[in-house]
Amino acid sequence: MAFSVEDKLRIARRLDDLGFDYVEGGWPGSNPKDMAFFERARALPWQHARIAAFGSTRRASTRAQDDPNLRVLIDAGTPTVTIFGKSWDLHVRCGLRTSLEENLAMIGESVAHLRAAGREVIYDAEHFFDGLKAHRDYALATLRTAQAAGAGCLVLCDTNGGSLPAEIQEGVRLVLREIGGPVGIHAHNDGDLAVANTLAAVGAGCVHAQGTINGYGERSGNANLCSVVPGLRLKMGLRALAPEALARFTETSRLVAELANMAPNDYQPYVGANAFAHKGGVHASAVMIDPVMYEHIAPDLVGNGRRVVVSDLSGRATLLHKAGEIGLRLDRSRPEVQAALDDLKRLEQEGYQFEGAEASFELLLRRAVMGHEPGFEIKAFHIAVDHAADECTSRAIVRVSVHGQEAGSSAEGNGPVHALDRALRAALERFHPELARVRLVDYKVRVLDADAATAARVRVLITSTDGHRHWGTVGVSENVVLASAIALASSLEYALLVTAPRPAGL
Amino acid sequence: MAFSVEDKLRIARRLDDLGFDYVEGGWPGSNPKDMAFFERARALPWQHARIAAFGSTRRASTRAQDDPNLRVLIDAGTPTVTIFGKSWDLHVRCGLRTSLEENLAMIGESVAHLRAAGREVIYDAEHFFDGLKAHRDYALATLRTAQAAGAGCLVLCDTNGGSLPAEIQEGVRLVLREIGGPVGIHAHNDGDLAVANTLAAVGAGCVHAQGTINGYGERSGNANLCSVVPGLRLKMGLRALAPEALARFTETSRLVAELANMAPNDYQPYVGANAFAHKGGVHASAVMIDPVMYEHIAPDLVGNGRRVVVSDLSGRATLLHKAGEIGLRLDRSRPEVQAALDDLKRLEQEGYQFEGAEASFELLLRRAVMGHEPGFEIKAFHIAVDHAADECTSRAIVRVSVHGQEAGSSAEGNGPVHALDRALRAALERFHPELARVRLVDYKVRVLDADAATAARVRVLITSTDGHRHWGTVGVSENVVLASAIALASSLEYALLVTAPRPAGL
Repeated sequence: MAFSVEDKLRIARRLDDLGFDYVEGGWPGSNPKDMAFFERARALPWQHARIAAFGSTRRASTRAQDDPNLRVLIDAGTPTVTIFGKSWDLHVRCGLRTSLEENLAMIGESVAHLRAAGREVIYDAEHFFDGLKAHRDYALATLRTAQAAGAGCLVLCDTNGGSLPAEIQEGVRLVLREIGGPVGIHAHNDGDLAVANTLAAVGAGCVHAQGTINGYGERSGNANLCSVVPGLRLKMGLRALAPEALARFTETSRLVAELANMAPNDYQPYVGANAFAHKGGVHASAVMIDPVMYEHIAPDLVGNGRRVVVSDLSGRATLLHKAGEIGLRLDRSRPEVQAALDDLKRLEQEGYQFEGAEASFELLLRRAVMGHEPGFEIKAFHIAVDHAADECTSRAIVRVSVHGQEAGSSAEGNGPVHALDRALRAALERFHPELARVRLVDYKVRVLDADAATAARVRVLITSTDGHRHWGTVGVSENVVLASAIALASSLEYALLVTAPRPAGL
Repeated sequence: MAFSVEDKLRIARRLDDLGFDYVEGGWPGSNPKDMAFFERARALPWQHARIAAFGSTRRASTRAQDDPNLRVLIDAGTPTVTIFGKSWDLHVRCGLRTSLEENLAMIGESVAHLRAAGREVIYDAEHFFDGLKAHRDYALATLRTAQAAGAGCLVLCDTNGGSLPAEIQEGVRLVLREIGGPVGIHAHNDGDLAVANTLAAVGAGCVHAQGTINGYGERSGNANLCSVVPGLRLKMGLRALAPEALARFTETSRLVAELANMAPNDYQPYVGANAFAHKGGVHASAVMIDPVMYEHIAPDLVGNGRRVVVSDLSGRATLLHKAGEIGLRLDRSRPEVQAALDDLKRLEQEGYQFEGAEASFELLLRRAVMGHEPGFEIKAFHIAVDHAADECTSRAIVRVSVHGQEAGSSAEGNGPVHALDRALRAALERFHPELARVRLVDYKVRVLDADAATAARVRVLITSTDGHRHWGTVGVSENVVLASAIALASSLEYALLVTAPRPAGL
């Protein structure tokens, strides 16, 4: 996961907007990009969040004031510093290769040094729960040392992510009893339990929970804040961010996925595209009658929406519902509805799917039911890719027919699809100048039967915008260029439909 | 998720091999494919698993012996039948639109009818935990009815997936106290807690847990058995499958992902490609010294492996370790090692990643460190895609140079990449007939900066085989054809390397 400084600032600002108390911005000692973030962050007005720099205690056998890691943490100029120290005797002996006493000194002196520099210190007790099992008294001693030196919060870390909720609760209660709070939790998802462990820790008395948006993090990830916060607020009834902030979680999840250049996880609880998706027939009709019967929360609480998935299991009722969603009121008994259903089934068999390609679905409905005619037709295209002597050029020639008139154009591009896109627009813009406003904002390729290797069918999904609205279109073919051409043509066809005045009655 | 009958049988056989007690094979009343599965399953020898058909109680106001759903469940000919009934009064009144008494009769008569037909009956109490909150006595009454009619196991379902582990435990304990067992759990992941809820239920006394491989299921999925079983066995110390079965979980997760045509989730706990991945530098060195310090379980317990991720954070130590993994012993002080590191950084900046493309990584190392020369060079290629009148043809012409000799060939294909693949092999096979054995088995395209739309860079990952081993190669370009050509050429170059006799000393 590599974010630019600009992306990190954008995410930090969003977290601040939402009302998170802390934003940890990176390890200023590890690379120049993280230091650049803190420099930029110092100049910005933060509404709510305190920016924290992250690092470790001083090295063994150095003085805190001479330690380069602690120096960069102070240089970061944040109000808060998070430092981690070792709680597990095994790590002290075999990882740090120092004595248990020296490790305590490293913790105490580092916290005290940062406090003396005016910083709030959050102390992350690395491998705390493993340490507790291995050498309970020593693990507790490390916490006592951090607390005595002035740490503001003791964060119990399940660094290897293997603890069970009951073990977490027991550990938190022990610390609160023996040492006192405030205590926090930092969970990893190696046992598929990071969210449960975080909720369990808060249930046992933690007042601080660390995590990441979408659970992004090493191995199987960190506690996913997109699940933790709704769990705390909607399930446990605790005050954790305002309802208006929660309502921006779906959008925030997608923003961070986009900046991280990760495909959004459609199956993600609460905020995923499928989290409130209902498939076909009886079930979908029941949801429309009384959503509480089939939904654990109202999707708008987290800014998500209900979706009825159009699939080969779906019947007439679902199709009519989808048509209603896009403003087409159809009479269920019309034979054209059956024709649309037949089209849909055939296309799905070929590998089409219309989730994320609602514009293609609407065009299909309009063609089948309302006799919609496309505003143009691609009569032919020719694409050439030439590679020699480290140069690679791509050219496309396209011939279109617009209301009986033919026109052609050609263009070069970075690759065959880019060239085709440019040639197609060039050919159409003289008839439809409004298409100049249309831009593609997303292009995805999915190989459908990967084991057919280069002969496999591919599905291309395109998202376009005219500056106001976004729409998705889809194309499927064994030929990636043809699949792209189908999705591109549908995108421009849809653009003509929505930018043109709509016929009366719709 | 649409499996063919053949795929379902393959998964069922695997689950049987692993020692699962039950395999639920589908709803025979819902579609002919599911009935075909049961017909085929009847003829097969099952070592351990009992095959279960899934369906609902009889409809309201019919007699059990006349109910078509119950009839197909019996016709499925399985030793076990799972039927679900309503526990939540809201669903009885607003979903089924019948009386609370009639719902009890539906449950009791359906179970009794199936028992009379000689079937073991697993009773799924749909929405049990929601029902318990809404109308406790009624929810319990539905279970009592199923038990009295002869249900072998009462499965408490968190159908909407919104319950917390503490609520699940309380519900399970209540049922065990008031009604008795055996009791099972069926959890959904809408609150990101399906695994925790399943483990909590077993901790509270459930002896039967339902779930799916990889958690595949509607909305945010079901309880993921790839996490539940290791949790039960490795964390809770319970007997749930044999250690040898657990060691096949990673392979099973990938098999089911492949048959479901879903991209494997690399971040999946226990079995994901990243579950035991360690990134660069200090951390990776520490893992090599003592894995228990950084791993919650030994990866081979679930058939997974440790991976040191090659990335721009990685240093010399990691590179040397990776080189060692592929049998190259390098001297760390050689300047060529720095050259290889520099190449790696530059390529990663361009969007390359070598996870899944170990062959490309090995070629890079061999070129930088050992002066490896490729067995051929692509001098030029020309690709043409022509589309007109619903026909689309793709042709490629390739010119290669092999040890100073030039040769050319051309081929048609389903798409530009397929044509290029065929032309390249045709040009090379006269020099290297051993390449005839090489097949591509997987082809993946990932758009790297999707918001650059059709001008985006793409990364192509190819997996090839010679019938014995598999290897992965990668190519990155703004041009999907060129990215594919790079990955293809590397795949064939690697094939020549591994099929040729190796130089002495390696």
